[in-house]
Amino acid sequence: MKPNDFKKPERLDREVVYQSRWVNLYKDTVKFPNGYVIDKYHLLDFEREAVAALMENAKGEVMFVRVPRYASGTAEWEIPAGGMEMGESIPDAARRELLEETGFTSSDYQLIYTYYPMNGNANQVFHIVFCKAGEAVQGFDENEVAEARWFNKEEIRQLLKDNKVVDGFSLTTLLLWLQS
Amino acid sequence: MKPNDFKKPERLDREVVYQSRWVNLYKDTVKFPNGYVIDKYHLLDFEREAVAALMENAKGEVMFVRVPRYASGTAEWEIPAGGMEMGESIPDAARRELLEETGFTSSDYQLIYTYYPMNGNANQVFHIVFCKAGEAVQGFDENEVAEARWFNKEEIRQLLKDNKVVDGFSLTTLLLWLQS
Repeated sequence: MKPNDFKKPERLDREVVYQSRWVNLYKDTVKFPNGYVIDKYHLLDFEREAVAALMENAKGEVMFVRVPRYASGTAEWEIPAGGMEMGESIPDAARRELLEETGFTSSDYQLIYTYYPMNGNANQVFHIVFCKAGEAVQGFDENEVAEARWFNKEEIRQLLKDNKVVDGFSLTTLLLWLQS
Repeated sequence: MKPNDFKKPERLDREVVYQSRWVNLYKDTVKFPNGYVIDKYHLLDFEREAVAALMENAKGEVMFVRVPRYASGTAEWEIPAGGMEMGESIPDAARRELLEETGFTSSDYQLIYTYYPMNGNANQVFHIVFCKAGEAVQGFDENEVAEARWFNKEEIRQLLKDNKVVDGFSLTTLLLWLQS
């Protein structure tokens, strides 16, 4: 059997616990490739994917935003990110999130990586995009963002060294950028 | 105002949608520091934290497991990881997960990073541990893991280059390891 021939787990039954545009919660009966059956697999189903946009200026600095987060009870520096609208392309979502959260136009979008942040129970998909900064054309959305500013590479390394970037989407994006 | 003085969002009200040992789903009324109120904030509450354990052998190779994932419909290579039991320490959880998923003993646990993989709606906490391999003392749990093997640094770089590591917990762990 070649590595890519592994079969996928199969759904035998589904109980709908909750449905909304934010998240669906299902209890599924799942048969795994080796025959093992889990009776109540709690699946968090996300209909919308999300994008994080690392925007670099001509000096090689990266735009960060400080976001008060209810789920984690934190307000640390993050890379701009958000859910994609239905039918929206990845570059369009990156452009929109950057404009909303930083007030900057942007260009030269490159899709760097796509992954599942919590594949043990959620099917949420995260896309990481790198792009170039344009200019500031408006303010940022103060209902979402508390502060926005540029960080240079040395400052970014220090944030990571101090475990200050606690948002996983931002952390992964920055680690990929430091590798690039 | 110093950067760390940002206030946290505050819960005004809560509707319980669902509770279980796997996940709780709440619809909270949340007031943000600037006064903005979200009426139905869907919070995915996880009572148990999780740990990923990057185990290195004397040759500098890293142990991977192939895990069929129902949520993402994938069966790609991952770093051993799993939920912590109530009251279990981070090193003990790393030791237990490695034994269960690879059959190896391990030692020299270092906590490398702690983060929130999806802080937009979930309070799940992920810990990343690096450690040293001991010896194989049993088989691995075939209900969870399809395959287990060592990868060298070059193979790991190639997996990442090809976007083959799609589990976020493993991706973050490996990027931190490549930086270390």
